[in-house]
Amino acid sequence: MSQAVADIGLIGLAVMGQNLILNMNDKGFTVCAYNRTVSKVDDFLNNEAKGTNVVGAKSIEEFVAKLKRPRKIILLVKAGSAVDAFIDQLVPHLEKGDIIIDGGNSHYPDSIRRTAELEKKGLLFVGSGVSGGEEGARHGPSLMPGGSDAAWPHIKEIFQKTAAQSDGEPCCDWVGQTGSGHYVKMVHNGIEYGDMQLICEAYDILKRGVGFSNDEIADVFDQWNKGVLDSFLIEITRDILRYKDDDGEPMLEKILDSAGQKGTGKWTAISALDLGQPVTLIGEAVFARCLSSLKAERTRASKILSGPQIKPFEGDKTQFVKDLEQALYASKIVSYAQGFMLMREAAKEYNWTLNNPSIALMWRGGCIIRSVFLKDITNAFRKDPQLENLLFDDFFNKAIHAAQDGWRRVVAQAMLWGIPTPAFSTALAFFDGYRTERVPANLLQAQRDYFGAHTFRVLPGKENAKLPAGQDIHINWTGRGGNVSASTYSA
Amino acid sequence: MSQAVADIGLIGLAVMGQNLILNMNDKGFTVCAYNRTVSKVDDFLNNEAKGTNVVGAKSIEEFVAKLKRPRKIILLVKAGSAVDAFIDQLVPHLEKGDIIIDGGNSHYPDSIRRTAELEKKGLLFVGSGVSGGEEGARHGPSLMPGGSDAAWPHIKEIFQKTAAQSDGEPCCDWVGQTGSGHYVKMVHNGIEYGDMQLICEAYDILKRGVGFSNDEIADVFDQWNKGVLDSFLIEITRDILRYKDDDGEPMLEKILDSAGQKGTGKWTAISALDLGQPVTLIGEAVFARCLSSLKAERTRASKILSGPQIKPFEGDKTQFVKDLEQALYASKIVSYAQGFMLMREAAKEYNWTLNNPSIALMWRGGCIIRSVFLKDITNAFRKDPQLENLLFDDFFNKAIHAAQDGWRRVVAQAMLWGIPTPAFSTALAFFDGYRTERVPANLLQAQRDYFGAHTFRVLPGKENAKLPAGQDIHINWTGRGGNVSASTYSA
Repeated sequence: MSQAVADIGLIGLAVMGQNLILNMNDKGFTVCAYNRTVSKVDDFLNNEAKGTNVVGAKSIEEFVAKLKRPRKIILLVKAGSAVDAFIDQLVPHLEKGDIIIDGGNSHYPDSIRRTAELEKKGLLFVGSGVSGGEEGARHGPSLMPGGSDAAWPHIKEIFQKTAAQSDGEPCCDWVGQTGSGHYVKMVHNGIEYGDMQLICEAYDILKRGVGFSNDEIADVFDQWNKGVLDSFLIEITRDILRYKDDDGEPMLEKILDSAGQKGTGKWTAISALDLGQPVTLIGEAVFARCLSSLKAERTRASKILSGPQIKPFEGDKTQFVKDLEQALYASKIVSYAQGFMLMREAAKEYNWTLNNPSIALMWRGGCIIRSVFLKDITNAFRKDPQLENLLFDDFFNKAIHAAQDGWRRVVAQAMLWGIPTPAFSTALAFFDGYRTERVPANLLQAQRDYFGAHTFRVLPGKENAKLPAGQDIHINWTGRGGNVSASTYSA
Repeated sequence: MSQAVADIGLIGLAVMGQNLILNMNDKGFTVCAYNRTVSKVDDFLNNEAKGTNVVGAKSIEEFVAKLKRPRKIILLVKAGSAVDAFIDQLVPHLEKGDIIIDGGNSHYPDSIRRTAELEKKGLLFVGSGVSGGEEGARHGPSLMPGGSDAAWPHIKEIFQKTAAQSDGEPCCDWVGQTGSGHYVKMVHNGIEYGDMQLICEAYDILKRGVGFSNDEIADVFDQWNKGVLDSFLIEITRDILRYKDDDGEPMLEKILDSAGQKGTGKWTAISALDLGQPVTLIGEAVFARCLSSLKAERTRASKILSGPQIKPFEGDKTQFVKDLEQALYASKIVSYAQGFMLMREAAKEYNWTLNNPSIALMWRGGCIIRSVFLKDITNAFRKDPQLENLLFDDFFNKAIHAAQDGWRRVVAQAMLWGIPTPAFSTALAFFDGYRTERVPANLLQAQRDYFGAHTFRVLPGKENAKLPAGQDIHINWTGRGGNVSASTYSA
C-alpha cells in the first residue's frame, strides 16, 4: 500500500493540468499526478516535473492511496461525460468527507447536479472556475470555487496560495453554493467575449476609419494600457499588433477573421435570456463571432453590398483616439454592470449567496480579463456589497458621465463610416434605455392588447375608474371583437 | 353510439379555439367542440355557436365517436403538459392513421418528440403554428402546419380554406417535417418581437427626438402605411396613437412601459445562439423587453444617470421622417434576412425540407406580421428558392442600398440625442458586418492563440511555410511558454 503523502491530487495532464501542478508544487504542496493515458504520468515526472516534489500514480487505486485525508482531487479533464466518468471511477475508492473538485469548463447545471449527487453519498463537490490560460495556471490563475460549503476550509489554503495575488490579496475566494463557481466563471468568460469584441471594434475603427498602421494602433493600445483601460487584453493586443512575420508584415493581418463560439459565451447569453436580464453586450459579442464565422458568405456579400466610401480622416486624431478610449471604457462599464445584474438574478434563481466584492477581486488578477478596472469594481462592492448596479456607484457614475460625449461621437461616426460596432452601440443603447424612466414599451403593450387581448397595466399617476392600479386591463381598441382577455392561449 | 358527423374536432374553447371553430364552420366544415370544463361546451353551443353546424361532445369518447375517419383533432390548449395530457387521453380511442394537430404555441422540440411518439403508435401528428390572434382565428389566420407528411393530404383542404387568403392564395401550406411547423411559427413570433421593437423605437424618436404629438405621430404611421411599410402592425400603431381616453388624453401615454418576455421570442434567440446564427435584431428585441420590465430599477437609474439635453428639432422634419421610414424599412429587411438564415440552418440541423416561398406566403396574411413586404419576400424566394440571403435578391439589394443613407443619419442622430435604438443599431451593425469581407475577428483569434494556444488559420493568399493553408496554427507570441496548442482543455 502506498503512503498518503500528497496534499492534493490532480487528474488530467494536458498543459493546464501540468502547469497547475507545477504551480501548486512551487507553493509548497505535494501533488499527486494521474492521467488516463498512464504513460503521460512518467513523461511528466521525467521532464516538466523533474526535480520537484510531484509524485505520480499509475492507477486510480494508487492515486487515491497517495492522498492525505480528507482527499482533495482536482479533475482537469474535458467538460462533459469525462468528468462524470472519472467521478464514477473515483467514488468507490473515496471516504466520507473526501472532496472532488472539477476545474474544467463545466456547464453550471452539471455542477449543481454533481454537488447534489456527491453530497448524497457523503462526499463533497467543488466546481471551480480556473482562468488564466497556460500562463495563469503556471504562475497564478484566477480560481472561482463553489459547491459544498464544507469543502472550503479544507482547500482554502491550497487554492488561495496557488491563485494569482493582486495587491497582496489572493484572486480566489469561496464563491457560493452548488454550481455558483462555474456560473461565475461562465459570466467571466462571457465578459471576456465582450472585452475582446470591444477591442476588435476599436482596432477596426483605428484601422479603417482613422487609417492607422498596425504600429500606430499598437502605440494607441500602449498608451491606453497606462490609463483606465490598463489590462491584460489591452497589453497583449499591443504586442500582437507589433508582432511581425519573417517578411516584416504584421502577423495579425495574415490571420483568418473567423472565430468560433460554442462554449461559455453562448451559455451566458442563454442564461441571460432565461433569467430575463438584458445582457446585451455579451449577446452581441457572441453573435459577432457567429457572423465572423460566415466567412464565405460574407465574402460573397461583400461583392454585392456596398456602404459609404471612407474618406481619409481629416479630424483631430488625438481627440478621436481619446473619444475612442472613452467609448471602450464606457462600454466596458456597461458590460460589467450587465454581468453583475445577471449574477444577482442567478443568485436569486438558484439560492446562492454570492459575494460580489470577492468576485471582482477574483477577476482582478490571474485571469484573461484582469485589469486595474476590476480594482475599482472591488472597491465599489466593498463600499456597498448590496450595490444595486455598478452605474449607481459614485466612481463609475462619474466615469460614465465623463465618457459619454466621446462615446456618442465615436459610435455615430462609425455608423456613418459603415464600420460595424455592435458592442459599442448596444452598450450605448443599454445606457440610454437604462437611464430612461419611460421607454416606449407602452406601445408594445398596447399592440399586444390590441391584437391579442394580452392586457396591460396603467402607468402610476394615470389611474382612473377604467384604468385601475395593479390590474390587468384590456381595452376594446377596435370597437369590434370581444372583451375577453387572453388567458390560457397566447398567440 | 354517436354518429361520425364532424369533419374535424377541436379541443380547447378559449377565445382562440372558439373563433377557429366558427371560422371553419363558415368555410363549410362541420366541427365538433370539446373542452375539459364540459359546461363550456354548452355555453358555446348556446351562445357564440348558436345557429351554426357546430356540434359538441361531453366526453372524450363521444368526441372521438363524432369524428369522420381518419379523425382530425386540433388541440388549442396551453402549451406544455396539457398537450401531452390530452394526447394521452385521446390515444386509446384513436385508430391507425388518425391525426392529432397541436395548434398551440408549443416549443418545437416537443413537436419533434410528439411526432416520433405518435408515429410509433401508427398515428399521425401535426404541430401547427396559428397566428393572427382572436381576429385572425375568427376570419382567417396564418396556419403553419408541419409534422407527419402523410397527414397533409387529409387536412390540406380544411386548413387552406380556413386560413387567410392573400391575393387569392391561402396563407397556409405544408411547412415540413416533425417540429418544423412550430419552429417556423417560433421564428415568426421572434420576427414579430423585432417588428414591434422597431416600431417602438420609431415612436420614441418621433416623440422625444422630433417632438411630435401622438396625433402627429399617428399621421406619420398613416402615411407609412401607404408605402413600403404597409402592414398590420403599422396600421394598428396608427389607431393606437389616435385612441383617446375619456378625458381626451392619448390612452397610449397611460400605459405602463413594462413588457413581458417568456416565450417564443426568447426561444428564437436561444435557437439562434445554439445554431450559431447572428439573429441580432430579435436578440435585441427580447433584451429590450427585459430592460423594459426593470421599471423600478430604471426609475431609480433615471434620477442619477443623465444624458444629452434634447433641443427642439430644427432640421427638416419631412426629410427626417423619410429617413426614419427608410431606417425602419432597412432594419426590417435585415431582421427577415436573419430569420431566414436561422430557418435555413435549422432545416440543416433537423433534416427538414423547408419551402421558403411558402413560408413567406403564409406570413403574408392572417398573422400579426402580415404586410405588403412579405409579398416581395415571396417573390424573391419564388424567383430563386435557393436564394442564399434576402440581401442577395435584386429587389431587396436595391431597397437596402437606397435606404442606407437615411438609416445611418437616423441612428447616428438618435445616439447623439441619447434615445436608445438597440434594434435599429444592431440591424445596421449586421448590415455593415455582413458586407465586410474582413471583419476584425483576426485580432480575436490572435488573442485566443496568445493567451490560450487556441490556434488560428491563415488568411487565404497569405500562406507561407510557417502559415500553411487549412491547418490550425499556433505561434509562440511571447517567446516564453510552450509550443503546445490547447487540445482537451479550453480555458
